[in-house]
Amino acid sequence: MSNPSDPFLEYLEGHRQDFLDGLCALVRRRTVSTDPAFAGNLVDCAGWLASVGRELGLEARIEETPGHPCVLLRGPEIPGAPKVLVYGHYDVQPAEDETLWTHPPFEPHVEGERLYGRGASDNKGQIWAWLCALKTLKAVRGGLPVNLNVLIEGEEEIGSPHLPDLLTRLRPEITPDVVIVSDTSTAVKFRPTLHYSLRGLVVFEVRLRTARMDVHSGVHGGVLPNAVRELAAILARVHDSEGRVVVPGFYDRVRAIQAWEKEALQRIPFDESEYAGWMGASMHGEAGFSTNERRWFRPTLECNGIFGGYTGAGSKTIVPCLATAKFSARLVADQEPQEVMACLKTWFEAQAPPWVQLEFVPGDSGRPYLLEREGAQEKLFEAARRAVLQGFGEEPLFCRHGGAIPITAEFQRILGAPTLLLGLGSPDDAIHAPNEKFELVNFYRGIRMAVGLLEALAEADRS
Amino acid sequence: MSNPSDPFLEYLEGHRQDFLDGLCALVRRRTVSTDPAFAGNLVDCAGWLASVGRELGLEARIEETPGHPCVLLRGPEIPGAPKVLVYGHYDVQPAEDETLWTHPPFEPHVEGERLYGRGASDNKGQIWAWLCALKTLKAVRGGLPVNLNVLIEGEEEIGSPHLPDLLTRLRPEITPDVVIVSDTSTAVKFRPTLHYSLRGLVVFEVRLRTARMDVHSGVHGGVLPNAVRELAAILARVHDSEGRVVVPGFYDRVRAIQAWEKEALQRIPFDESEYAGWMGASMHGEAGFSTNERRWFRPTLECNGIFGGYTGAGSKTIVPCLATAKFSARLVADQEPQEVMACLKTWFEAQAPPWVQLEFVPGDSGRPYLLEREGAQEKLFEAARRAVLQGFGEEPLFCRHGGAIPITAEFQRILGAPTLLLGLGSPDDAIHAPNEKFELVNFYRGIRMAVGLLEALAEADRS
Repeated sequence: MSNPSDPFLEYLEGHRQDFLDGLCALVRRRTVSTDPAFAGNLVDCAGWLASVGRELGLEARIEETPGHPCVLLRGPEIPGAPKVLVYGHYDVQPAEDETLWTHPPFEPHVEGERLYGRGASDNKGQIWAWLCALKTLKAVRGGLPVNLNVLIEGEEEIGSPHLPDLLTRLRPEITPDVVIVSDTSTAVKFRPTLHYSLRGLVVFEVRLRTARMDVHSGVHGGVLPNAVRELAAILARVHDSEGRVVVPGFYDRVRAIQAWEKEALQRIPFDESEYAGWMGASMHGEAGFSTNERRWFRPTLECNGIFGGYTGAGSKTIVPCLATAKFSARLVADQEPQEVMACLKTWFEAQAPPWVQLEFVPGDSGRPYLLEREGAQEKLFEAARRAVLQGFGEEPLFCRHGGAIPITAEFQRILGAPTLLLGLGSPDDAIHAPNEKFELVNFYRGIRMAVGLLEALAEADRS
Repeated sequence: MSNPSDPFLEYLEGHRQDFLDGLCALVRRRTVSTDPAFAGNLVDCAGWLASVGRELGLEARIEETPGHPCVLLRGPEIPGAPKVLVYGHYDVQPAEDETLWTHPPFEPHVEGERLYGRGASDNKGQIWAWLCALKTLKAVRGGLPVNLNVLIEGEEEIGSPHLPDLLTRLRPEITPDVVIVSDTSTAVKFRPTLHYSLRGLVVFEVRLRTARMDVHSGVHGGVLPNAVRELAAILARVHDSEGRVVVPGFYDRVRAIQAWEKEALQRIPFDESEYAGWMGASMHGEAGFSTNERRWFRPTLECNGIFGGYTGAGSKTIVPCLATAKFSARLVADQEPQEVMACLKTWFEAQAPPWVQLEFVPGDSGRPYLLEREGAQEKLFEAARRAVLQGFGEEPLFCRHGGAIPITAEFQRILGAPTLLLGLGSPDDAIHAPNEKFELVNFYRGIRMAVGLLEALAEADRS
């Protein structure tokens, strides 16, 4: 890996142990945000990260919230240079049941090229790689190439409840051109991936009533509508026989898959039978699209749960009067959640025959996210490409993501900035599970990638 | 009501208070069979009923079971006379929550022409009317017109778990021509009803699996089958658009509605809009049949409950891998439960597309019951007609019943005897509910009806 012509890599090679020791010190902190018992650990950790920032020559502030504090590290102003916000989090998931861990979760443990410990991958290892990159830049280059802010929050694992307010408060002084988040996994092991799109979300519930009460299926069975059957009938026709959602307007605005995306998709190694085997399922979805197209490029509508009537042990011979189904739709660019919600509401309400009362209960929603390949955001793709090439010796994969990462929507909404999702986790890191680990190859190469990304962004801006 | 030409009625008039006092003494006994705390009360009550029987000149035996005891009262042998078994139960439902009762449930309380108390209608008032009829017959006639056995069990409210074994044990000495059960309600208030048919039952569960585990609806949504949707699709097509069950063979053997049944049905007062209003439902069922035809003459298939995926508060964005639905089918003469179960199993299994695993789990079943209007059982209709006319001054209603009364099947199977269901309960008696009551009009007239029924059975046999 050593490359004498690359002074950053040279510095990095000389500080591997130093960088790893720092990460271990961070992992050792039991910063479980969901458990009030650890609130003091989070305060201590924020303070420690601020002191680390100061050693890097950054201005360090603890931003208090009604919950756990946030750490804000600010680089010096560099007129004309791009404004970059790096985001990460120092809080972690709980580590229960600790007996399922081979080594204690908060005693970081290196085995081969892996560091084991709660938060090693999510997100301590990744945000620490960024701090190591800043140290490397300072040592080798004497300073940062961009106007930099680093925001490390303590409530990501509990849904970032106070982040929007904090971003609103910081907006007057922090107006980044781009936000960088290393908090995802590479699509393929050791192949860094720019996740340039996320799906949006629309959640709702359908409640259907057919009578004032459940009645005896013997005495009254056969004469009144059955709520479960009526709901099933509606649910069964949401999709047509080709797996398409029949709701009018559902696919309006869906952006067609671009030629470059098809190419990028083909570069992503994917063993469909292995994937199907892992899930223990037959692949099945919208006609005309491949599995990865279905989960990354197409909106979907899934019933997340259903209940109605008697669901306990044995039997209870009733005609149920109530049935409820929970749904979530995943949206893609350029769908608007409220438009889709309205289409769904109209369709479901129209499905109710006169003998049922149907209530459509809208829930949460979130917009899909897409980094544009053309135009102003093109340089972000190019910077990511160059940075990954420098760090990993290979081009990154460009990949969409099927899930939602709500903070990206907040960065867009509050700060008006796009997000570069360039994760250093490995798909098999066991985040949120026992024996979480972080691949040290991703850690060291990731530091070089982070250095390269800031440089590339600065350069892109100059050109 | 007094009729000097009817010595039974004369006796009855003179003993109204005596009969009512006896019933109150029975209702006062807290014979809740489901609660082990009251086991002693049940033993005491059985002993008391035996002593009452002895006072009537009957042989009285306590038939022990692994649960609560049964009381068997036996009349003297009358060669050539028909053999009649009268069945009832002295156990009652729990009376919780007692605060919902206007008067304490085990302190019988007369208000107007009603007796309030737990068990007043179900079944103490009804079986006590029979004992009063035996006393009346003894006093007026000097003895019984039939070979009589009276079986009063203590476990009806918990499903008569030990009755089949007891019947099997008693079969060598008790081989009735007919069993009389007064444990139902009149179809219309004060209009005694011969329920000449009951529906049978087939219970089953369908379990459907599409994957090894629930998966994230964002990361994996749209690419694999959804268990809830797949089950809903099957459930939605069990019935066609006309409300008919599409399962091949389901309607095989169903006996057509006879001309006399259509006439009898028209004599039953029925306010459909009042019925629909009580249920808060729109009437909806199999095309080509009226509401009462649907619930009494037609087999039905109802989903009793469904569950799958996330059913808690809020949302959980998963693609569920498992869904389960519980079903019960109600059968009519001459359907065979095992044949229907086989048809259902074949159909459901054939509905599973290749991407799901479907398991059909058969549950309980019971045969439909029908007293034949023609042939050997015709005299039972005639005896019931005469007895009700004597007791109530009106002809009985002949009505089918939509539910199942499993003991009738046991009487048929073990003793080979048909059952005359001639209930004295009123549809508004609030059995199993707070403030249960018994209409004293039904009680006194019912005693006369019982006297008349035994006489009519004896006479029918002679003619």
